Parts: sequence; structure tokens; C-alpha cells
Amino acid sequence: MTVLVVGSVALDSIETPFGKAENVIGGSATFFAASASLLTRVQMVGIVGSDFPVDKLERLSARGVDLAGLEHAEGESFRWRGRYRHDLNSAETLETRLGVFSHFLPKIPEQFRDTPFVFLGNIDPRLQLEVLRQVRKPKLVACDTMNFWIESRRGDLLALLKEVDMVTLNDGEARQLTEETNLVKAARWIMAHGPKHVIIKKGEHGAFMFNAKSIFFAPAYPLESVFDPTGAGDSFAGGFFGYLAQTGDLSEGNMRRAVVCGCAMGSFAVERFSVDRFFEITKEDLNARIDEFRKLVAFEKEVMP
Amino acid sequence: MTVLVVGSVALDSIETPFGKAENVIGGSATFFAASASLLTRVQMVGIVGSDFPVDKLERLSARGVDLAGLEHAEGESFRWRGRYRHDLNSAETLETRLGVFSHFLPKIPEQFRDTPFVFLGNIDPRLQLEVLRQVRKPKLVACDTMNFWIESRRGDLLALLKEVDMVTLNDGEARQLTEETNLVKAARWIMAHGPKHVIIKKGEHGAFMFNAKSIFFAPAYPLESVFDPTGAGDSFAGGFFGYLAQTGDLSEGNMRRAVVCGCAMGSFAVERFSVDRFFEITKEDLNARIDEFRKLVAFEKEVMP
Repeated sequence: MTVLVVGSVALDSIETPFGKAENVIGGSATFFAASASLLTRVQMVGIVGSDFPVDKLERLSARGVDLAGLEHAEGESFRWRGRYRHDLNSAETLETRLGVFSHFLPKIPEQFRDTPFVFLGNIDPRLQLEVLRQVRKPKLVACDTMNFWIESRRGDLLALLKEVDMVTLNDGEARQLTEETNLVKAARWIMAHGPKHVIIKKGEHGAFMFNAKSIFFAPAYPLESVFDPTGAGDSFAGGFFGYLAQTGDLSEGNMRRAVVCGCAMGSFAVERFSVDRFFEITKEDLNARIDEFRKLVAFEKEVMP
Repeated sequence: MTVLVVGSVALDSIETPFGKAENVIGGSATFFAASASLLTRVQMVGIVGSDFPVDKLERLSARGVDLAGLEHAEGESFRWRGRYRHDLNSAETLETRLGVFSHFLPKIPEQFRDTPFVFLGNIDPRLQLEVLRQVRKPKLVACDTMNFWIESRRGDLLALLKEVDMVTLNDGEARQLTEETNLVKAARWIMAHGPKHVIIKKGEHGAFMFNAKSIFFAPAYPLESVFDPTGAGDSFAGGFFGYLAQTGDLSEGNMRRAVVCGCAMGSFAVERFSVDRFFEITKEDLNARIDEFRKLVAFEKEVMP
């Protein structure tokens, strides 16, 4: 099955202790699509300016990402400049220029409106709601968000929560949204406000998936060197949704496998700048890393005397 | 088999958002012994002052903790006063009074010197080395340490590393000791300096166990309410060592089960003040929580098409 993603398409300039990259492609929709397209067909909706090096998206379309929903507008593309210090844990934003993204009004092409899997990347919750008015009965809708919208668009975000099946957000955002320090309580708060499923991403500490009946946890892969953490969360979401869309199975067991697939894709993302790593790996590499996750957490039962 | 622990025996006064406790028993040896004694026999070596309410240790001896190595000295017991804020992540130390602990010179009773499992709790590495001079060919020796010794006794600590089979320390300490931000690299650095096994504890984010060939990860149990985090790390070590000593099996598979048992005991520790929780639970409760850990990380294999 196919997955539709709506989100930002950006040009990133990044400095890490290991190198620099100037104007490489980034943004939530880009990372999501690069990751998910290893597994299934992807439809991408976003906006770029007249300065965007469109040829850089060819790798995506070559892998089955349908760019019919990518709007080309007059003006500058969304640009983000950031720096990671030695610990790589948090990005320091040096500059954000929204450009054409500040006027973005998602228009879902007619041929995308029946797509069964919909991921609403981190954009204004009013626009996420607008996307939901344009699509028809998807099988699974998830949204991401960020501190800025939690603060400035709380009402719209709460309205959105009523309309989605799943939320993905990081631990800090979950705490900010719910005003609960404890993540189990935070997840219950979110589920009480609409979504049946909550994924709380903890970066290098892994990810939790909650539903009414169970909690699943998958660690982040213990990489010996992390090169650039940008896009790990959206790559996680792409791996998760790509796996679900590929299998079309929303059982608990399959959603757990999807989380692990998401963690594996997140671990690949951070091994190179931009989405580069996704074009070096094969499904075999992905399966091998998923096997590594299994070995990482495996322990056999032995009832104690 | 039996496990010997050498460490602090303290009186803790603690404030958390959920309550206060004054002069409750604590210290690394106490938490370790309370935890491990649910699984196996424990010998405890430490020091208390003339003010110590010795009757509070009766619960330990009733559960098979041999207190023959507990020295009773003239003067004040080790006292720690601390506070946890809303997020419960880090203790704020309000007061530390070493008392008789500042003159502690561990004397291992003759009948403890052949004990196969030895845990050197967080004390001066020179004293940890002194303990190793007194014991005879243990099957497994592990040590813990802390930022203070890493800074002030680096040479002694490095000498100790050459003599132990395993180190347990938290992520911050591992980074400080090795000057490596990445935990996989930090673990390799430590293994290159002696120990075959390294456990890096990440508090609410779980624990890694490294050896030359593999990495194992166990999450912390996602408790809905954490009452008092004091002693979680030593309770983890007690559960880990207690499990190994009970089974006498140092295979990789059994050490993984021991880590999960340690995580389970850590999760019990934080549900009450002091060591209280360990006297409410049974082996059945422990097995039930270990089963919960299994469910938390379980995902079934399905080779992708």
C-alpha cells in the first residue's frame, strides 16, 4: 500500500564535529520519504522555492516517491542552519528562514486523496487539520508536532488529536503537551485526548509505543559513531509507516515490528549527512540491522527456582 | 552460591515531591544486600557508628544477610541528606557527613574470604584494591565507582580495573572516566583497560552490558509513578549479582537474564523509600516483573518480502 506524507522540504546547512554540509536536502517530508521509499510507494506533499535544486530530488522519484504534490513557488526555499556540539544530543539552531514555507497551504492532488496511510509531518496543526479535510477515510493517520506548535497553537493541536489515530512526538514534547513528567502518564493523557496509539521518541534512548493495553519499547541502535543526527525522528517515522504500508497489517505484533524498523531507519539516517545513507542501503542491510536489534534485546526465559 | 558486598551503610534523609523520610537505612551495601538477598545468601562488609539503629538491619539478617563483616565504630554513621525535584532525574545533595565511614578500612572476615561472587560498592578505589588483597580467587569480581574517585583517584582506579572482571557505572561516569562521549567507545576503552564485562547504567533509560563479542540492552521498567530513585543503581547490582550467584552460571545468556533481573530489582527499589519495597515482594513478584520486561521488548520475526 501507499503512504502519503505532508511536511517540510528544506535546504539544511549543518556543522557537526565530523564535518560540514551546505544546502543539502532536508525537512520532515524529505527524510520521511527517503526512509519509507525503501519499503513502499510514497506520495509527498510540500513546497519548495525557485532556488531549490530540484535535481536533488531525482533520487527520491527514482525510488518511487511521487512528487506530484510538491508545489513550486516563487521565492526562497525553507532553509535551516544548525550546529551539533561534541555530544550530538541537541541541535543549536543558527538560522531559520521559512521562505515560501511560511505561506504553505497543502493541496492534496486528487489521485492522493484515497491513500490509506497518511503521515502529517511537523507543520502548523491548522494545516494538518486542513490535510485531513482533503483526504478520504485513510486506514491510519499519524501526526508529529513540536514545541513551537504546542505553545502557540494548543487549541488547534487538541482539535487535531481528536482526528488522528496516532501521535509521534519526542519525550520533551510529550511532557510539554501533557504537563506530565512521567512518560507513561503523558501517553495516557494523550490517548485520553483522541489517539489510540502514541509513540514517544527518546532519541539515543530509543522509543516507546503505547496503546490502551500495552507498552512496547525499542532501543536506539548503539552506533559507535553518529555522524549527523538531523532527520532521525522523521526517518524513524518513515521506517515505521513504510513497514506498515508495505505489510498492510495493523495488528499489535506488526506495529511492534514497524517500530523496530523505524529505529533501524533512524540509525541509518544518522550515519551520513542529509538522506544520503538511504541510497546506499538495501533491504538486506535493513533486515540485517533489524536482526541486530533482536540480538541486542534478546534474553531467554528461565523460570527461577 | 554466596555473594560478598563491600560498601557504604548509611542513614539517608530524603525529600521527594511525594514525601519525606528521615534517617532511613541506605548506602550502597545496604541496597545491594536487600536486593540480592531475595535471590541468594549475602555477606555484607561495611561500617556504622554508635548512633546506628542496628535493629533496622534485622530484616536483612532475617533474610540471610550475614552481618559478621559490619564494623561498629565509635562516632557518627555516614549520613546523606538529599532532595529530588519534580523530574526525579537527579538528586540534589543537601548534606553529606562521612562520620566513621571516613576511616573505613574493610576487614573481610576469614569465613568470607572464599566467597565466589564479590561486589565492590562505590568506595575509595584504594579500599576496593585492599578488599581484593584479602579475598581468595573469586569467580567474579565487579566494582562500581563515582565521579569523585574518577577525578581524585584516577591512578588507583586504573590499577583496580586491571584486577576486576566487570565494572558497573553510570553513563556520565563512563564518559568522565574514558573521555569518550559515545558509550560504545567508552565501553571498549574500559575493556581495553582490564574488565571483560562492562555494565553502563542509564537510570530511567535502561542499561547496557558489553563484552568483547556482544552488546545487550535492557530498558528501565516504565513505571507510572517513581517514588524515590535513591539506591536504584545498587539495587540493580544486587539483582544482577544475586541472580548470577543463585544460578552459578556465567554464560552470556545467563548474564543477560541477570541484567533483566537487575533492572526489575531497580524498578522495585524506586517504588518506596529506603529498602522497604524489597520486604514486600516475593520471588513470584520478581518473576512477574521479569515477564513484563519480556513483553515490553518482544517483537516477533518476520522476514520482509
